[in-house]
Amino acid sequence: MLNSITSPTDIKQLNIVQLQSLAKKVRTFLIENIQRTGGHLAPNLGIIEMTIAIHYIFDTPYDSLVFDVGHQAYTHKILTGRFDKMHTLRQKGGLSGFTKHSESEHDSFGAGHSSTSISAALGIAIGNSINNSKGKSIAVIGDGALTGGMSFEALNHAGDSDADLLIILNDNDMSISKNVGAMNKYLTRLISGKVYSTMKSKSLGFLEKIPQIHKFAKRSEEHLKGMVLPSTLFEELGLDYFGPIDGHDLPTLIQTLKNLKKQTKPRLLHIITKKGYGLKIAENDPCKFHGVTPASSNTSSFPSYSTVFGTWLNNTALHHKNLVAITPAMCAGSGMSEFEKNYPKQYFDVGIAEQHAITFAGGLAMQGLKPIVAIYSTFLQRGYDQLIHDIALQNLNVIFAIDRAGLVGADGATHAGSFDLSFLRCIPNLIIMTPSNAMQMYQMFNTAFKTNNTICIRYPRGVSNIQDYVTDKQISLGKAKIILKGSDVAIFAFGTTVESAFSAGKKLNATVVDMRFVKPLDKDLITELANSHIKLISIEDNAAIGGAGSAISELLHQRNINTSLSILGLPDKFSEQGEQKELYDLYGLNEAGILNAARS
Amino acid sequence: MLNSITSPTDIKQLNIVQLQSLAKKVRTFLIENIQRTGGHLAPNLGIIEMTIAIHYIFDTPYDSLVFDVGHQAYTHKILTGRFDKMHTLRQKGGLSGFTKHSESEHDSFGAGHSSTSISAALGIAIGNSINNSKGKSIAVIGDGALTGGMSFEALNHAGDSDADLLIILNDNDMSISKNVGAMNKYLTRLISGKVYSTMKSKSLGFLEKIPQIHKFAKRSEEHLKGMVLPSTLFEELGLDYFGPIDGHDLPTLIQTLKNLKKQTKPRLLHIITKKGYGLKIAENDPCKFHGVTPASSNTSSFPSYSTVFGTWLNNTALHHKNLVAITPAMCAGSGMSEFEKNYPKQYFDVGIAEQHAITFAGGLAMQGLKPIVAIYSTFLQRGYDQLIHDIALQNLNVIFAIDRAGLVGADGATHAGSFDLSFLRCIPNLIIMTPSNAMQMYQMFNTAFKTNNTICIRYPRGVSNIQDYVTDKQISLGKAKIILKGSDVAIFAFGTTVESAFSAGKKLNATVVDMRFVKPLDKDLITELANSHIKLISIEDNAAIGGAGSAISELLHQRNINTSLSILGLPDKFSEQGEQKELYDLYGLNEAGILNAARS
Repeated sequence: MLNSITSPTDIKQLNIVQLQSLAKKVRTFLIENIQRTGGHLAPNLGIIEMTIAIHYIFDTPYDSLVFDVGHQAYTHKILTGRFDKMHTLRQKGGLSGFTKHSESEHDSFGAGHSSTSISAALGIAIGNSINNSKGKSIAVIGDGALTGGMSFEALNHAGDSDADLLIILNDNDMSISKNVGAMNKYLTRLISGKVYSTMKSKSLGFLEKIPQIHKFAKRSEEHLKGMVLPSTLFEELGLDYFGPIDGHDLPTLIQTLKNLKKQTKPRLLHIITKKGYGLKIAENDPCKFHGVTPASSNTSSFPSYSTVFGTWLNNTALHHKNLVAITPAMCAGSGMSEFEKNYPKQYFDVGIAEQHAITFAGGLAMQGLKPIVAIYSTFLQRGYDQLIHDIALQNLNVIFAIDRAGLVGADGATHAGSFDLSFLRCIPNLIIMTPSNAMQMYQMFNTAFKTNNTICIRYPRGVSNIQDYVTDKQISLGKAKIILKGSDVAIFAFGTTVESAFSAGKKLNATVVDMRFVKPLDKDLITELANSHIKLISIEDNAAIGGAGSAISELLHQRNINTSLSILGLPDKFSEQGEQKELYDLYGLNEAGILNAARS
Repeated sequence: MLNSITSPTDIKQLNIVQLQSLAKKVRTFLIENIQRTGGHLAPNLGIIEMTIAIHYIFDTPYDSLVFDVGHQAYTHKILTGRFDKMHTLRQKGGLSGFTKHSESEHDSFGAGHSSTSISAALGIAIGNSINNSKGKSIAVIGDGALTGGMSFEALNHAGDSDADLLIILNDNDMSISKNVGAMNKYLTRLISGKVYSTMKSKSLGFLEKIPQIHKFAKRSEEHLKGMVLPSTLFEELGLDYFGPIDGHDLPTLIQTLKNLKKQTKPRLLHIITKKGYGLKIAENDPCKFHGVTPASSNTSSFPSYSTVFGTWLNNTALHHKNLVAITPAMCAGSGMSEFEKNYPKQYFDVGIAEQHAITFAGGLAMQGLKPIVAIYSTFLQRGYDQLIHDIALQNLNVIFAIDRAGLVGADGATHAGSFDLSFLRCIPNLIIMTPSNAMQMYQMFNTAFKTNNTICIRYPRGVSNIQDYVTDKQISLGKAKIILKGSDVAIFAFGTTVESAFSAGKKLNATVVDMRFVKPLDKDLITELANSHIKLISIEDNAAIGGAGSAISELLHQRNINTSLSILGLPDKFSEQGEQKELYDLYGLNEAGILNAARS
């Protein structure tokens, strides 16, 4: 059945029983397929019925459908002619794990990061209006993504417009982990008042029968409306609100969408879904089943960098009550679960809110605490202004634990941490460290904790081949370390590229330096080696443009040193998806790449 | 009287009549002083009484006071021992026009950009709690700043916390220009229901007398509460809401703050003020009197770069219905007033919401329109992730008109556009142009409008010495232009530094190149000149680290060219405030700096 669907028009002929059967088949397929390919399981199981209903009622790509984040769009991919490629999901050359406009015109706007859908869909809606197109524009956004400030900015605009925009709020009381924040509590109250929602109209009628009220109403209709008919927060922001309805009840979804399609004002449909719906183990532990790794994948016995960070947090908090750590909704991913359990008062999950996370940390630092902001490199882009304006400018003592730096693998370009060294290096007051292994990373955090500066420590996704990394040691600020002495060629390696540099260095009889710091750069050591070698090579898992190698390039010119330099880093294009190693090989960020550079 | 106030304790002895007299004196002083120094007039006149009330009731710096944006803190500066320096406001070495922690411990958290105060004050409040301090934490935020998504992220956190945080919402129905958006309309409804606010309790009593209602209430108190007592949006988000009250009524302000000081939960006081209060011309045109230039300053007869951009918009829209332009609340500053008037349907002021502005533009571009996002360089930092993830990654045809690039003068470090070339250059797919004068800028916009790429055109604050700049001409993509042929020294100048380069070049008999593009760089021309000259100099009004000169540095190493290169750019520290020219001279970004570099 599934392979007979080549476009959404194929499902428009089905009756409700057939659609329900389709949902079942999609569910069974997704459970099997994601176990093979890896990917986002629970979010996709939760939105199968809604996706079918949307494609049953609307006509993409004429109507525009924008999924927020996009990791819940697997059913959408199946229904829009990509079923036969679902086995390639998240693999090199295969289907993206997110929506991607270049992959399909049915992906009306690409996604990956949270909270962008309302802005994009509003732009599309207003674009349609300018173009005199009757196409509808739909944003599907989860309750977690709704807490991102950008969503609010978009609601503020949408509610004040007459755009033909339908926002579907997929409320599963979960983003990646348990949701936090006032908005989440508000939605919970809204849902628990299912009664309330249906009562609205009833109670109005009821009250109108009371003469005093009726009289009062006549006198001031506006006030009655404001007083007696409580509106939801969304209505207060100018949107029409519908719901909440059961997001797994296909007939109701279809009927509701049919009605909502006819409307032309900004409107929000609130649906309640269950993350992991239909797979008991996923329903019961949606966090664990948010994303799953392929069944075939080898689990390393070595700790991940995230785990190392978590261990350091946990160990350090034991003796330091002034340590506080903040995550924008990435507790588990950042390795903070243990810390959260042990030090709940020093732990702050602020929800998907990178901007707030950073300036909030600034406030804590201003009171003499030692805040650590744990954030993925790609999401730090969201808090860039706050890092500059609220932290670095005031030289506040905040440590940024920047996870997922460099290429991240299957998640592809939207999640790659390709730019942090470039966008951080230009900011005054920062200290930027790139650990080459788990133990050095631990030492760097020790060092950072004892240093009164704004400090960035950036490390990759994946494991470090070291089991015992806990140490009291610190490292010297701004000092690189020669790990192999040779001649002719000197290799300046940053972060985990040190490993390839070391093996290439041995083959080349080269000098190899574990640079450790991008800022301050160990200028004297570089100068010394530049003067005593004939060829320099820098290597990093960051864009070659403006990155760590670029800092060396600037230094050589500054000091008028003529030694030749090859800068190895990520090329000037958005990265592909695929295994991390596979991609680094593709981009020549490996031993072979260094050997090539040395010989050219 | 004012010069006798050396700290806030000095005003605590005053009685209400004396405080009112103080307010009057401050107002008179500000009106005179700001006309001399320049600065933000209307916002400061609006908040005099509130500031006095705060310092009368609270004890800074023990209690923390965080002003959002900080340009309304002049009264605060006067009351915290800085009266005698007010004449140095916004001048080199003088008082900052914003709050600045390094300037005074009474500035509990520095500001400059919008919407940061709630995050910072919440961090301070929670920091106090961890430190077992009873200090209070207060955020003062305008209704305009409230629309920035970051404020919402912070409210979402605050409302779910038990932090001892007082938010004072200074509602003057104005940010820099007229406020837009649903939140603004909501606040207006809230205020217009001044009746409503007092009625709340009354109406509850009134309704309780009706037996049916009372019975109903008994049955379900929650529902009654939800139904009959409409809560404000802030209460829905978990904050206690007070107000609205008159922000110019000192006795009421003092009594209210006294009461609110005793409370310990997150709470919001809504005050209504009049921007420009007490100065009729400012009250009547608060936009015009938002910021004023010193009476002594010479007004140039040449058009500013912002005006040139506005003219281009206006002229181009005449023949191109697909041109749409978006501003995050900077209509006049970005030179868009004429365009707004003439093409209201193609104009979008989205409020202080840089993130949304950019992704919204992405949605418009997806529908085939040609969106131009007009944004200041420093505020583009707020939308960095959106530029990368939503625009560049999809290679959408959006033009970024980046105003206020480089140093901006009196506003200082928070508003300097020092980093854009560094943080943009590393992003794939971008075309980055740096016009050296008004006519070239016009040509660049012509070019950008005809090119299907993501394009950034960055230009400085101030005027270009050209009166007639309107042209149909375009320029060749990626091509630099030799404007002076010489020998030995070649100067690669970006943007408006071309002028200094030209005059230095004449003295040096150097070759001077107007680079025009940072990306793509004119690599072949650079190579050719590097091979035919013995000394290269690059100059730009961006951080030397990672900027345009850095691109040349990378290129020389990439092509193995040994010619020596000096990179002139902003130093690795946050810039001071002062006259633009004064600062560029300080940093050697002028003719003398180039001559120095050439001779060294």
